[in-house]
Amino acid sequence: MPVDKLPSRSEYFSDWYNQLVISAELADYAPVRGCMVVRPYGWSLWENIQSALDRRFKATGHVNAAFPLLIPMSFLEKEKAHVEGFSPELAVVTLGGGEKLEEPLIVRPTSETIVGYMYAKWIKSYRDLPLLINQWGNVVRWELRTRLFLRTLEFYWQEGHTAHATEEEARQETLQMLDVYTDFAVNDAAVPVVPGRKSDSERFMGAVDSYTIEAMMGDTRALQSGTSHFLGQNFARAFDIQFLDPNNQLQLAWTTSWGFSTRFIGAIIMTHGDDQGLILPPKLAPIQVVIVPIYRDDHEASEVLPVVEKVRAELQDFRVKVDDRTEVTPGFKFNDWELRGVPLRIEIGPKDVAKGTVAAARRDIPGREGKAFLSQEGLAGQVRDLLDRIQLSLFEKALAFRKQNTYEPQDYAEFQEVVKNGWAFSWWCENPECEIKIKEDTKATTRCIPFDQPGGSGPCIFCGQPATEKVYFARAY
Amino acid sequence: MPVDKLPSRSEYFSDWYNQLVISAELADYAPVRGCMVVRPYGWSLWENIQSALDRRFKATGHVNAAFPLLIPMSFLEKEKAHVEGFSPELAVVTLGGGEKLEEPLIVRPTSETIVGYMYAKWIKSYRDLPLLINQWGNVVRWELRTRLFLRTLEFYWQEGHTAHATEEEARQETLQMLDVYTDFAVNDAAVPVVPGRKSDSERFMGAVDSYTIEAMMGDTRALQSGTSHFLGQNFARAFDIQFLDPNNQLQLAWTTSWGFSTRFIGAIIMTHGDDQGLILPPKLAPIQVVIVPIYRDDHEASEVLPVVEKVRAELQDFRVKVDDRTEVTPGFKFNDWELRGVPLRIEIGPKDVAKGTVAAARRDIPGREGKAFLSQEGLAGQVRDLLDRIQLSLFEKALAFRKQNTYEPQDYAEFQEVVKNGWAFSWWCENPECEIKIKEDTKATTRCIPFDQPGGSGPCIFCGQPATEKVYFARAY
Repeated sequence: MPVDKLPSRSEYFSDWYNQLVISAELADYAPVRGCMVVRPYGWSLWENIQSALDRRFKATGHVNAAFPLLIPMSFLEKEKAHVEGFSPELAVVTLGGGEKLEEPLIVRPTSETIVGYMYAKWIKSYRDLPLLINQWGNVVRWELRTRLFLRTLEFYWQEGHTAHATEEEARQETLQMLDVYTDFAVNDAAVPVVPGRKSDSERFMGAVDSYTIEAMMGDTRALQSGTSHFLGQNFARAFDIQFLDPNNQLQLAWTTSWGFSTRFIGAIIMTHGDDQGLILPPKLAPIQVVIVPIYRDDHEASEVLPVVEKVRAELQDFRVKVDDRTEVTPGFKFNDWELRGVPLRIEIGPKDVAKGTVAAARRDIPGREGKAFLSQEGLAGQVRDLLDRIQLSLFEKALAFRKQNTYEPQDYAEFQEVVKNGWAFSWWCENPECEIKIKEDTKATTRCIPFDQPGGSGPCIFCGQPATEKVYFARAY
Repeated sequence: MPVDKLPSRSEYFSDWYNQLVISAELADYAPVRGCMVVRPYGWSLWENIQSALDRRFKATGHVNAAFPLLIPMSFLEKEKAHVEGFSPELAVVTLGGGEKLEEPLIVRPTSETIVGYMYAKWIKSYRDLPLLINQWGNVVRWELRTRLFLRTLEFYWQEGHTAHATEEEARQETLQMLDVYTDFAVNDAAVPVVPGRKSDSERFMGAVDSYTIEAMMGDTRALQSGTSHFLGQNFARAFDIQFLDPNNQLQLAWTTSWGFSTRFIGAIIMTHGDDQGLILPPKLAPIQVVIVPIYRDDHEASEVLPVVEKVRAELQDFRVKVDDRTEVTPGFKFNDWELRGVPLRIEIGPKDVAKGTVAAARRDIPGREGKAFLSQEGLAGQVRDLLDRIQLSLFEKALAFRKQNTYEPQDYAEFQEVVKNGWAFSWWCENPECEIKIKEDTKATTRCIPFDQPGGSGPCIFCGQPATEKVYFARAY
C-alpha cells in the first residue's frame, strides 16, 4: 500500500509524475524494457475513456472491427514516407512455430497498410463508400526513451480508418474526428486543447495533412493528445483502393486515419494532479465518490454503517466505493483516495447520523474551502451538482493556467526566454529551416497552426520574413 | 454484395461454414497465413459477447487490466509443462528497433507467466488476496491448420487470472468461472453445453485440473467452448507468488486461469445456422430486428415510409436496422438478412399501413409457419415476446439435437459406429492408453468427464476394466 510522500509537483514535476503513476496503481513497469502493465485502476480509467469516445464514434456513423497484429514487412514498403518513418521503430517476428519465416512479419506500429490492403479487397463501387471503420487495440513501436503512458513500446489506442469517394468528404471526415477528440478532451476530460494543423515536419508519415489537439501540461510542456490525418490518395495508390463511380469509371479512393491513445492518461495526470496525487475529472473517474465511515467503537459503528448503506443506495447512479477497511484509520483512507484522485469524498460519522447530514470534501479544493455538510435528504442531486462543479472547475483552472503561460513574444530574444516555461504564439513563415533553428536554440517545436487565427500578417519570429499564420511553439512530450 | 448460394449445410458442412463466414461478412482472410480480419458485423457480435461476459465477471468481483504482449522467452521456461506445451506454437520477436535482441521475446500465446511475474511483485500479504483480474486482448499461437474463428494464429479472448490464499478458494473460483461460462452460453448464446473436467491428456499445460464446457456443433462434432483451470501452486512456485498469512508466515498462493475466445463465434454459427445462413440468438445479434419497407412507387412510399419511421421509433429499445436501400429488391433484402441471421424481420407495405399491422417473419422458422401479422399498437411488447421465444426455441432445438445424437453404446463395436456421427457417453477407466487407442481407432477424444454422473460403476468401453465415471467421447474441432 502506497504511503510514501510524493515529490513536490512544482519542484520535481518529472519525478512527481513517475512516482504518482506507480503509487496510485495506474500502471507498473513490465519486465520487458519500455513496456507497461496497466493496472486495474488505470485500465478502468481507460475503459471510461474508451466508452466516451466509442459513443461519439458510433454517433458519427463508425463501426468497430479488428485487423491483424502481424503485417508482412513488404507492406510497409509500399508507401515511401510511411516506411521511412516507421522502419527504425519496428518489432519484427522472424520465427514462427519453431521455424525461420520466409518473410519477416512486423508487429503493427499502426495499421494503415493492412487496412489499405483489405479495403482494396472490399471496396468495389461507390456504393461501398464511405467505409468508416475504427479499431481498438494495441500497437508496438520500438521507442528508445520510454515513460509510463507517455511513451511505451506497446501502447493501447484506437485507430480509425476511413475511405471516401471524394477529397472533400475525406477532408470533412478528418476535421470531424478532430472535433470529436476536442469535444471529448474538453467536456469529459476537462483538458483544454488547441486544435490545429501540424507543420510539414511534424506530419504523420504518409499523410497529406495532419491535424492535432495540443494540451498544456502542469509543467507548461505540450502534449499531442490526438491526431487526425488526411491521407489523400497516398495509401489508396499504394494498395489499389479503387472503386467504380456512378459513371462506371474506376477512381482512386481518398482515405483518412485518426488515433487516440493511452498516452492521454498522462495528459489527465499532468493537467489536473497536485502534490497530494491525482485529481480525476468526475466524468471519467473510475470512482466518483468514496464514502468513508467514521466511528470509534462498535456502538458508533452500529449507528453509522446502516446510514452508509442507505447513502450508498441513494448514490447508486454514481460510481461509488465504500471504504470499509478496518485495518487502517480514516486519515489513512483520506490520503489514499486523495492520491488516487477520487473527485468527491463523503464522510459519515455519529454526528452526521444525529444531524441527518454527511460531510463532503472536494478533491480539487484542499482544506476547509472544499468542505461542506450536505443533507442526507436529496443527496443524489447535491452530489450530481458538486461533481458537475468539480468538472467545470478543473477545466477552468487548466484553461487559466494555459492562458497564463502562453506568450506572444515581441522578438526572438523574448521568444527564447518565454518558451523555457511556456508556450509562444508567434508568426512563422512556414520555412522549415526557421523551425529547425528554433528547435536547436530552444528545444521548442511547432505544436500546431491553430484554426483560430488572428488574421492579417506579421514578421516570422525567427527570420522576420512576412508570415500569414501564427503558430504555437513549445517544448513537448 | 454476397449473392452466391451457400453449399448445403447437411452435405457440405465444412464448405458451408467457410463460405458463410465470408458471405455474411463476419470475417475475412488476412494476408498473413492463418490470420483473420474480424469485420464489423463479426466484431459487433463479439462486442455483445464481451459485454455479456464482462458484466458477469464484474458481478463476481473481477476487474480488468492489461498485461504486455511481449514476454521474455525465459519466462516460459520457468514452468516445465507450460513451456513444453507452448514452445511449438510460438511467434518470436528477434529484432527490435533495427537491432538483434539480446533475449528473444515471444508474442504471448497466453499470459500465465507474465501475470505470475507481476503478481509476485504486487502480492505481499493475505490482505492483497484474492486478486481477481481479467484481461481482454489478443494472443498468437502458431497453428498449422487454421480456420476462421475456430483456429487462427491470432485470436481475441479474455483471460482471467486469480490468486488466492487457500486451495479451496482457488478451486471454488475455477468452478465459479466455469458456471459463468455455462450461464452465458445457455442463456445468452442459446448454445447448450456440457460442463465437466478434462482428462489428464486434454489438460492445460501447467494446470492441476482443467474444466471445460463442450458444445455439439451441427455436424455432431464437439467444440471446446470455454475452459477454466485450477493451477494449484505450479505458477506460484515458478514465479514466487508468496504472501504473509495472518500469522506472519510466508505462504505460496494458489492460482487459477480461465479463458473464452472468438472461437465461440464459430460455435454460434455451427450450432444455429441453416442452409440460408446464420441464425443469431436475439440476445447477442448485432441487429435484432430488420425493417424492410415494401412499396412499388412514390405514392406508396409516401404512405409506407412514415409508418416505418414510427415503427423504428417504437422499437428504439431494440437493435433495429431499417433497410432503406433503393437499388435492390425486397426479395434480395430478405435473402441478405437471412444470410446474416437477423432473428426477426418486419415488413411494412401499403396493406399494413391500411390495416395498422406489420408482417413479422422469424428467422428460425422458415416459410409460412414463422410468419405473423402484428398490430402496430403495442408492437414493442410483441417484438420482445417474439425475440424471447426465438431465443428459447434456438436453445431447445440445439439441445434436442444434442440429445438425438448422443449415444450410450453397449460395446466398443457400437461405440466405433456411433462416434462417426455423434457423441458417445461411456464408462472409461481413466487409463490414458485406452484414450489413445480410441483416438487412433475413431478420431474421437475424451471431451469431458461431466459433473453430472449417473453414479455406480461399469466396464470401461475400451478395456472392460471397472470404471467409476462416464465420459463424453467425440470427434472435436
